[in-house]
Amino acid sequence: MKQTPQILRVEDLSTSDSKWIGLKQIHYKDEDGKDRTWEAAERKTRGSGGVDAVAILALLQAEGQKTHTIIIEQYRPPLAKTCIEFPAGLIDGDETAEQAAIRELREETGYEAKEVVDSSPVMWCDPGMTTANMKVVTLRVPVTDMTTLPKQHLDPGEHIVRRIVAIEELYDVLREYETKGDTVDARLANFAMGLSLTKMLNL
Amino acid sequence: MKQTPQILRVEDLSTSDSKWIGLKQIHYKDEDGKDRTWEAAERKTRGSGGVDAVAILALLQAEGQKTHTIIIEQYRPPLAKTCIEFPAGLIDGDETAEQAAIRELREETGYEAKEVVDSSPVMWCDPGMTTANMKVVTLRVPVTDMTTLPKQHLDPGEHIVRRIVAIEELYDVLREYETKGDTVDARLANFAMGLSLTKMLNL
Repeated sequence: MKQTPQILRVEDLSTSDSKWIGLKQIHYKDEDGKDRTWEAAERKTRGSGGVDAVAILALLQAEGQKTHTIIIEQYRPPLAKTCIEFPAGLIDGDETAEQAAIRELREETGYEAKEVVDSSPVMWCDPGMTTANMKVVTLRVPVTDMTTLPKQHLDPGEHIVRRIVAIEELYDVLREYETKGDTVDARLANFAMGLSLTKMLNL
Repeated sequence: MKQTPQILRVEDLSTSDSKWIGLKQIHYKDEDGKDRTWEAAERKTRGSGGVDAVAILALLQAEGQKTHTIIIEQYRPPLAKTCIEFPAGLIDGDETAEQAAIRELREETGYEAKEVVDSSPVMWCDPGMTTANMKVVTLRVPVTDMTTLPKQHLDPGEHIVRRIVAIEELYDVLREYETKGDTVDARLANFAMGLSLTKMLNL
């Protein structure tokens, strides 16, 4: 029987004791030639490709149906809430972003991508606060129908709920999640705002 | 004469010495009732409103012209590069997100908003890595023409370059920045991907 996760306690962590994230003081010379400092968090796991993570925009296409995508629901300890996100994950040491995207889509959702439609340039997740970066990989996934979900390949302890959404309904679906107390990843939320604004402005 | 900023050195920082960002170990009970830990970075500056930051989607509207928005170019030490972003900033202790948006738009761009069109729910910037959250506030800014930029109100040491872009050209403009070696914030990039996909899929 699945239970609601619960935060037990939070304590300070030192960069020398942490495994995943470190804290850095950056000393730099600014545009005026003045010496300044900046604080940033960084992932300790970045591989040789120089990119931390990948998010997947899956285009689920079935004969005669609107294009759908898949979003996931996952409990995130830093928020103490369920967060709605694109499927995503860290890139393993020797993988390309596209390989990581295909692997993560299979593991988290069970879907097998048939084509890499687009692989974005590297983008920065929160450039005032962290060194974390990512790519968005757009994958084409042919499906026979939108209601039969394939088997996930989750690690023990991973709990990921999948939701198939018509892309044109994504903005409204995210607002529904927020109404019932869940929260949305900023990248997915901004993607949906872009979708919605195009219609609003009749672009 | 403005010079290109330069990283001098980077060193480990402890949570007890940092001013802006801390590192935390979160102990929690997961969906199976198992005790687990998670590492996260957090902003030390969060005010009573519980929201760290705001980003501004400005809708610049002039009689008979396409809707434009404003993006900014800013050197970001964690990236050691210029990053292209929405105007944005931290919310001061006693401000609402909407007040912070109007203030930051004035400071960073000089534009005076005339209306809050939309204030998004709280969204999480990088929920696997940090507790950082934000809102996107959409502001209507009537302008007489798109070529005359108002005076910025920057703090000493702040260097922010403004760029006015027709919203329907945003995706292509961001790709041009990337071609010349600048980089793009993930939220702005995802917003532009949403704009672009709507056209691609004929939604």
